[in-house]
Amino acid sequence: MTDGVVVALDVGGTDIKGALVGPGGVVRHRARRATGAGRGQPAVVASILDFAGTLAGRARAGGWTARAAGVVVPGVVDEELGVAVKAANVPLASVPLRDLVADRLEVPAALGHDVRGGALAEARLGAGRDADHVLFVPVGTGIAAAYVAGGAVLAGAGAAGELGHVVVRPGGPRCGCGARGCLEAVASAAAIARRAGRPAPEVVARAAAGDPAAAAVWRDAVEALADGLLTVQALLDPQVVVLGGGLSRAGEALLGPLRAALRERLTFQREPRIVGAALGDEAGCLGAGLLALALGP
Amino acid sequence: MTDGVVVALDVGGTDIKGALVGPGGVVRHRARRATGAGRGQPAVVASILDFAGTLAGRARAGGWTARAAGVVVPGVVDEELGVAVKAANVPLASVPLRDLVADRLEVPAALGHDVRGGALAEARLGAGRDADHVLFVPVGTGIAAAYVAGGAVLAGAGAAGELGHVVVRPGGPRCGCGARGCLEAVASAAAIARRAGRPAPEVVARAAAGDPAAAAVWRDAVEALADGLLTVQALLDPQVVVLGGGLSRAGEALLGPLRAALRERLTFQREPRIVGAALGDEAGCLGAGLLALALGP
Repeated sequence: MTDGVVVALDVGGTDIKGALVGPGGVVRHRARRATGAGRGQPAVVASILDFAGTLAGRARAGGWTARAAGVVVPGVVDEELGVAVKAANVPLASVPLRDLVADRLEVPAALGHDVRGGALAEARLGAGRDADHVLFVPVGTGIAAAYVAGGAVLAGAGAAGELGHVVVRPGGPRCGCGARGCLEAVASAAAIARRAGRPAPEVVARAAAGDPAAAAVWRDAVEALADGLLTVQALLDPQVVVLGGGLSRAGEALLGPLRAALRERLTFQREPRIVGAALGDEAGCLGAGLLALALGP
Repeated sequence: MTDGVVVALDVGGTDIKGALVGPGGVVRHRARRATGAGRGQPAVVASILDFAGTLAGRARAGGWTARAAGVVVPGVVDEELGVAVKAANVPLASVPLRDLVADRLEVPAALGHDVRGGALAEARLGAGRDADHVLFVPVGTGIAAAYVAGGAVLAGAGAAGELGHVVVRPGGPRCGCGARGCLEAVASAAAIARRAGRPAPEVVARAAAGDPAAAAVWRDAVEALADGLLTVQALLDPQVVVLGGGLSRAGEALLGPLRAALRERLTFQREPRIVGAALGDEAGCLGAGLLALALGP
């Protein structure tokens, strides 16, 4: 596949990230367009297919051949059937997106889940590339997780990885899902902002500057994250935990206290390395590219 | 492999279960001998190898050929290297048991973990045989878990499945591992007995008969198990949960209230089927047999 590339798409609530990815995950070209989620499902599907076609055209213009396509979407995804089942922030319900993309481009296609795609990319090309067992945890508006073992993502029966809904504070704050004390209700960027009455990055800065109210909210969030990671460590035993999403931009202000809080809680379990994501918001698109590259020459 | 069998061994703290297993997991012969754990590592290793030899001899006498061997042991197991790393109740520390058995019998051998072996057997041959994503949870002196996805067991980086040490009661009872509020410290048969001052089966019987003290301990245990399963459901999304171990002999007295308690806690997660184990204490040995059968003809 020396002059072959794959078309990669990461469909989000706000925009669709696109790329042409070559062997080894090298990005040859990147582009982005608005999802226009408010326009409804037919328009969004048309945008995705049109964007895929544009990227394939760009490949031809660059002297490459688009050999396959990979698409990742949020929500519930049936990877075997290639169907986007449902999502909270993108109007895709029971859409056979894999086959639609394959038909449009006349190449094999793969459909994946955005977080699992991001996990695959971080595990193979990013912050987890030297480990066999990698947990990827994007912390933003919500909290999710995906586990990569030996280069393959664990999907469970389709809905694995809901780390945000592990109960860490029984009887605690009400979560959007209806339960109380979910990790996401304490430690997501949205929960931090709601509890502190200001955006999460500002809470981090104020906590660092010694503001006691901000420090309390931040400490609660870090301790809840440590409780969640302790549970994952017992159940899945990852070697490396890669933190991504908006909150991970706090860098060492998050990673340092989180490592300390987890270390305090471990008894017999292995201490994982806790590191920041390396691929930023390109992880999902690279994951889509890896899924397409895995379809063969 | 029409007249081929494999030698299967499940090494426990009290006894070693042995079997000759044919294609499809059919048990042709079963035997058992004392582990003699108190005699120290060299004697235990000698017992294992001698028992394996006896079983291979029994195969020849029955007109079968022993084509491979599988051994499962408790504790920490390096399945790739075939080494029993350490265990709490059997004196096996860094023993290359796979190669020792292979050398003794002059056939290929596999080494596995007892709970993961039992999970494999329940998933392929037992209570989870109609599902692709099966969680096996033996509840006895301790609580463990192993997850089988698409016929393969998830081992993490070697120490996955410590469901007993998921914290379900922050600040709760002290666990043997040093932490507080681990599931095992509330809901194992040992914890139930300790809290009620009588053996777990008696607690179950008394709770059913309306004894309020026994009923309170039993309810606590069932609710803690439901909390633990809720966490697993969010993270791993199993279709079927197979309860094994001594406590599962309580049957519907456990399964009924546990199903109700989990249902009450689910928000968006799938409700798994919760069933009792089908293979009893033969699951580990059958799992060892499946590992051996997977080594090929």
